[in-house]
Amino acid sequence: MTKTALRIGLAGLGTVGAGVIRLLAANQALIARRAGRPIIVTAISARDRSRDRGIDMAGLTWLDDATELAAHPDVDVVVELIGGSDGPALTLARRTLGAAKPFVTANKALIAHHGRELAALAEANGAPLAFEAAVAGGIPVLKALGEGAAANRIVSVYGLLNGTCNYILSRMESDGLDFGTVLADAQAAGFAEADPSFDIDGIDTAHKLAILAGLAFGAAPDFAGVATVGIRAIDKADIEQAAALGFRIKLVGLAETADGELFQRVHPALVAQDHPLAATNGALNAVVIEAVPVGRLFLQGRGAGEGPTASAVVADLIDIAQRRTGLPFGMPVAELASLPRADSATREGRYYLRLSVADRPGVLAELTAALRDHGVSIESLIQRPHADSSAATVVMVTHTTTEAALQASLEAMAASPSVSGRPVMMHILDL
Amino acid sequence: MTKTALRIGLAGLGTVGAGVIRLLAANQALIARRAGRPIIVTAISARDRSRDRGIDMAGLTWLDDATELAAHPDVDVVVELIGGSDGPALTLARRTLGAAKPFVTANKALIAHHGRELAALAEANGAPLAFEAAVAGGIPVLKALGEGAAANRIVSVYGLLNGTCNYILSRMESDGLDFGTVLADAQAAGFAEADPSFDIDGIDTAHKLAILAGLAFGAAPDFAGVATVGIRAIDKADIEQAAALGFRIKLVGLAETADGELFQRVHPALVAQDHPLAATNGALNAVVIEAVPVGRLFLQGRGAGEGPTASAVVADLIDIAQRRTGLPFGMPVAELASLPRADSATREGRYYLRLSVADRPGVLAELTAALRDHGVSIESLIQRPHADSSAATVVMVTHTTTEAALQASLEAMAASPSVSGRPVMMHILDL
Repeated sequence: MTKTALRIGLAGLGTVGAGVIRLLAANQALIARRAGRPIIVTAISARDRSRDRGIDMAGLTWLDDATELAAHPDVDVVVELIGGSDGPALTLARRTLGAAKPFVTANKALIAHHGRELAALAEANGAPLAFEAAVAGGIPVLKALGEGAAANRIVSVYGLLNGTCNYILSRMESDGLDFGTVLADAQAAGFAEADPSFDIDGIDTAHKLAILAGLAFGAAPDFAGVATVGIRAIDKADIEQAAALGFRIKLVGLAETADGELFQRVHPALVAQDHPLAATNGALNAVVIEAVPVGRLFLQGRGAGEGPTASAVVADLIDIAQRRTGLPFGMPVAELASLPRADSATREGRYYLRLSVADRPGVLAELTAALRDHGVSIESLIQRPHADSSAATVVMVTHTTTEAALQASLEAMAASPSVSGRPVMMHILDL
Repeated sequence: MTKTALRIGLAGLGTVGAGVIRLLAANQALIARRAGRPIIVTAISARDRSRDRGIDMAGLTWLDDATELAAHPDVDVVVELIGGSDGPALTLARRTLGAAKPFVTANKALIAHHGRELAALAEANGAPLAFEAAVAGGIPVLKALGEGAAANRIVSVYGLLNGTCNYILSRMESDGLDFGTVLADAQAAGFAEADPSFDIDGIDTAHKLAILAGLAFGAAPDFAGVATVGIRAIDKADIEQAAALGFRIKLVGLAETADGELFQRVHPALVAQDHPLAATNGALNAVVIEAVPVGRLFLQGRGAGEGPTASAVVADLIDIAQRRTGLPFGMPVAELASLPRADSATREGRYYLRLSVADRPGVLAELTAALRDHGVSIESLIQRPHADSSAATVVMVTHTTTEAALQASLEAMAASPSVSGRPVMMHILDL
């Protein structure tokens, strides 16, 4: 018995789009066995028809307007790899789901911004909406979280979700280089975009975190609720000091709930060297799910690039071919919670501080008094003289305190004439 | 709209069975949201009705004969937690699937031995057969492998699949204790069974490996094809020597294909300290999936115990409630391959060797000649005198060679009057 093929309309023929076509060809037979029927691309759309992508486009219908894939009679499923939270990607999503056709995307910005609307449209039309490739590339983390851990109360979900940032931080540490040098290298080698701000300012991580948090806590993504700090300001001095204290600096995206409020934040954090995230280096991604009763689940793999992203896109297609799909956020949109945003000022944690101070009597007393006055106690403190000046570096790790108390004591310290430059503060990941 | 509940018949009320009942109660509301309907236990069966398990059994139908759950009119899905590859577990599986009802189990022995038969029965009757809890407890590894990585050609799947063994080996290293001492401790603390042979002889790992390999390579489990060596013979001297060389000793289950043949083996292996498996200590489990094009996926979590196993069982129930199920090994039984078993003698790898030898001139020349005569070359060699005798310990790491060549050279060395006792040989994991 020959089964009817699942016919794909593909929008976007960049690295990932070409990768999906190559993967469907390279693993054609085994994909058909696991999907229960062949999966074939029938129609494509991209910006530039003439560009040579090293793939055979003979026999494929070309559409200049990607949004026409939605209504095309030879297309059963639309795969959107255009990118961007609005514009043609959003139009294509609306039209495809509106036509009751399955929609598969790797577009984190689209889902982070319009997840609720698109999930509602998918539900109303009985059409699957799948986006495994949008978070952590080849790691099947949405499946692990939404299905594998579905019986659990999720306590927190956090991880390293941007390979560019992780590559930069890993190389700053391994090669003792500063941020700008590594970024320029990464751009030259094609690991970082010409405009790297989406990556290094943490926005890409925040998109992915909002999706993870939605799935984890039964809510629609709340991208606007993610407090985001990127890695531009990280100095190699901090990487060295953190290493001396037994930590690595990573750009962490973290979501957790407490008292019915959702806390979502992207920021550089000090991660203990024996934490599994600390051993996630280079362009790797990793996600930790802390849940009751399963405990800690740790997943690590390649988070971007042609092969891993195509792997996740085609996994979604196989699920669709097998009718092994559910609602986009695991439950009806009407049941999704609207979780109030937690006040980060009251959140407790330990902090790393680095200050440049004048090397003269009384300075340490001044700093420690500023902390004491705000109820912040010190776990460890190292003062080292600068080799080339009369200044000194003071590095501290606090005991657990609130962010509000820490910020207030930082303000007091920054106002002191003994302190030069802005004090550096970073969170310590104690999960 | 109130949805009809999914009614569970539960066979076996040990740690995991009671855990499933507790989890369905504790996370009742969120499980119902994620399942789209309530999941309730209606009927139970266990050996001893009078035992106090700390769970409320009021309102539940009690059956003395577990196999009667299959035909019970108030049971939609049977969950089997009795254990054992044959006997009532097998009878219950046959009757349940024969009655076209879904069957969920944590029983690795059952699936490793009867996977093909039960998958055929499930397929013929259109009834889901799910066993996520059978492998690596709370880690959703079957979902990651069979669905998340479904677009990939799997190159190898390997990992640490037995928490008892990993606990024993971790404590032997951390506390410098010998095998017998740690085993007795673990038994006293309830981490190891009174009869620990299923765990420490590698049989439990082999059951799980056979299931992983079936799913990875599109075949039915071939438990009889797993060459299995356990951890009884591991000496703390080897753990110390391995550590000095930059390795940890772990009980590894490994499956891979080459030239259409399936290689499956469970054995202690030296794992480089920077490999993610080396950082998987205590009772944790971990699985590595090496696949094209996704690359390496690494999953780590709790592999046994009430919470993790119940998490996996209830995840299967939620999938069944959502009709998000497929064929047990990802494709029809008629399409499952029967892969010939690879000849392990021709497999290439590096090896660790430890010998006790007489400390006199010419002994090293004799050993190295035995290796040279069989084409085995030495990567590193350390000889140390024994403190309390005229003997010495020789530890070697070979370059890549075949197991046949290594065994032949070992025979030659063992026959030498200069060598006392049996030489110790272990595989080095170079994946």
